[in-house]
Amino acid sequence: MDYAAESLRLHREWRGKIEVTPRAKVDSSEALSLAYTPGVAAPCLEIQKHPEESFNLTRRWNTVAVVTDGTAVLGLGDIGPEAGMPVMEGKCVLFKAFGDVDAIPLCVRSKDPDDIVKTVSLLAGSFGGINLEDISAPRCFEIEQRLQEVCDIPVFHDDQHGTAVITLAGMMNALKLVGKKIEDVRIVTSGAGAAGIAIIRLLIEMGLKNVIMTDRKGAIYEGREGLNPIKKEMAKITNRERVAGSLADVIKGADVFIGVSAPGTLTKEMVESMAKDPIIFACANPVPEIMPDEAKAGGAAVVSTGRSDFPNQVNNVLAFPGIFRGALDVRATRINEEMKIAAAKAIAGCVSDDELNADYILPHAFDPRVKDAVASAVAQAARESGVARV
Amino acid sequence: MDYAAESLRLHREWRGKIEVTPRAKVDSSEALSLAYTPGVAAPCLEIQKHPEESFNLTRRWNTVAVVTDGTAVLGLGDIGPEAGMPVMEGKCVLFKAFGDVDAIPLCVRSKDPDDIVKTVSLLAGSFGGINLEDISAPRCFEIEQRLQEVCDIPVFHDDQHGTAVITLAGMMNALKLVGKKIEDVRIVTSGAGAAGIAIIRLLIEMGLKNVIMTDRKGAIYEGREGLNPIKKEMAKITNRERVAGSLADVIKGADVFIGVSAPGTLTKEMVESMAKDPIIFACANPVPEIMPDEAKAGGAAVVSTGRSDFPNQVNNVLAFPGIFRGALDVRATRINEEMKIAAAKAIAGCVSDDELNADYILPHAFDPRVKDAVASAVAQAARESGVARV
Repeated sequence: MDYAAESLRLHREWRGKIEVTPRAKVDSSEALSLAYTPGVAAPCLEIQKHPEESFNLTRRWNTVAVVTDGTAVLGLGDIGPEAGMPVMEGKCVLFKAFGDVDAIPLCVRSKDPDDIVKTVSLLAGSFGGINLEDISAPRCFEIEQRLQEVCDIPVFHDDQHGTAVITLAGMMNALKLVGKKIEDVRIVTSGAGAAGIAIIRLLIEMGLKNVIMTDRKGAIYEGREGLNPIKKEMAKITNRERVAGSLADVIKGADVFIGVSAPGTLTKEMVESMAKDPIIFACANPVPEIMPDEAKAGGAAVVSTGRSDFPNQVNNVLAFPGIFRGALDVRATRINEEMKIAAAKAIAGCVSDDELNADYILPHAFDPRVKDAVASAVAQAARESGVARV
Repeated sequence: MDYAAESLRLHREWRGKIEVTPRAKVDSSEALSLAYTPGVAAPCLEIQKHPEESFNLTRRWNTVAVVTDGTAVLGLGDIGPEAGMPVMEGKCVLFKAFGDVDAIPLCVRSKDPDDIVKTVSLLAGSFGGINLEDISAPRCFEIEQRLQEVCDIPVFHDDQHGTAVITLAGMMNALKLVGKKIEDVRIVTSGAGAAGIAIIRLLIEMGLKNVIMTDRKGAIYEGREGLNPIKKEMAKITNRERVAGSLADVIKGADVFIGVSAPGTLTKEMVESMAKDPIIFACANPVPEIMPDEAKAGGAAVVSTGRSDFPNQVNNVLAFPGIFRGALDVRATRINEEMKIAAAKAIAGCVSDDELNADYILPHAFDPRVKDAVASAVAQAARESGVARV
């Protein structure tokens, strides 16, 4: 199928992939007096008295803003806020279909982090959570961090953390399959953007010690010329031996490759140079760093990609709906590391030991068990880590 | 019925009066590829190339933001942004039920006009229109005007203009009933807030020449001490003879009273002092400036209030859904005077000459003819006045 042409045709037909639907009737004078004036004064006054009641008397408890500035939409780059809206609306559809979450798309007509932080923070009283989407690095790090500092609701950049959670889930099962431990393996990444950095941070939380990140200029190490602030930061917690060199150089003997970069970055020869039973996460979209058959020809034990037409798809839809469902259910003030790790474990746990094999390390996107498993694990982790309000 | 208690109970049961519903399916891998990645890249690129396509390929064409800062909610005053949300959600229900418009409630955690203007203007690419709601005067005038200057979509403060449109509609029919013309009558108002000022401005547009506004200190006239900027402005276009005095003084001989102030402001004796066949619009809510039976005892020919339990209800639901429907249908860049007057005429026209009587000068809130009549009149006025984009 020509997805582009058919999708464009459908979008013209849909004229919007979401709509707002009333849950209260206003079909009589009496109904109007209850849902609107004069009756509505009562819930208003109740919220004025007890601000937390906004989570009981309005839709706030279940509503998430999906916010973009249009600077890093899909693989298309900076296409502008309005042009990002079809993706945001799609995300809102996924939120409802996979997480029972009401999500509202908002595009911001500014690339200035100050503007974005201010705009979103001033609206935080309308929502139970903020999902940042398709905001370019390194701005996305600052925007998320500053927003979380001033907001009393979770702020979650899905391109970072959703991807990190799924990757961690897949990694747990892949390592189990080849009989290795996260503490012992050496991981090499290609791509040091938002997703790559979030993945490595989460894997380090889980015990990863030996990791080298690479970008277009090769291995990132402390002291390398021209590193931006976020890469500088990563250089302090990765590649402690300050190894320099190209991806081909540093991947020799590595146990795991994680690619969030560009098609063709990884060759069969590089895979052959890795340790026994190499694990390959080639997540560039839509064309991975290496095609699965080539990686397997090079000796890969497990191959994961971002594509639905290959096994082991790293698909964010496995994570963000359940993560927000769980966070909203306990009225969490943030989504912390504990909650992300709990989500990853829950996703990994949806594949039983009996089922686990090289072509099935992650549940399918439509596995109906995933949402509830993730939501309840996230809610519990929120409670245990002290960020739940109910 | 105890509306307060029952409304509070229902709000707890509803847990939000609106929700977000998908219009596109994502129940298979193929459906996902069309509504989301990779297919969604096509409509994104189309909008990047042709920005106006955001009105065809996303829900923007039908979506209005309902924005408050919570400073003038119902008659409750400054109760805060979150506490205003039950009203905003109610408004969104009315938008859909009466106008087929998707409306999204947003409360802003700032009272600073600069903040509100910036926040809303940066989000304008997400919407086809902005409905400002329950923002206190005189800030509401500045906020609306500045927002309209920077936005390419209509910005409409319903408390001002919705009320003005309905009042004008009712006034047209009331004057017809008593055989007077807007050019000839003398009108006295009580209340010089957002609604009172918008009503008088629109009536002046329609030909009104002789009008005195009063506030708690009596008649507003040019040169009166301590007038705020907006009242100063009104003093230049009303009460040209600079009459001073109390409401009781200046209402003598007047043809029309319009109240948007407080209960008990108007007495039977004052009505008796007016010209023959006085018209009384007593719109304070929930208790009017004078009760209808008392006004009639004073000789009133027509009495209109804001209440649904009396005849001739001035109810904004007659106006804003059709006004936005019409504006959105032609992708208007603003809602100008021509469109408001067209809306008022369309509403007035829903009461035929045969039906018109002292207890029926305005259609009922649930009259199904109103929306389409208003929408098509507003769309036509937008086209004729050059603010329609399609």
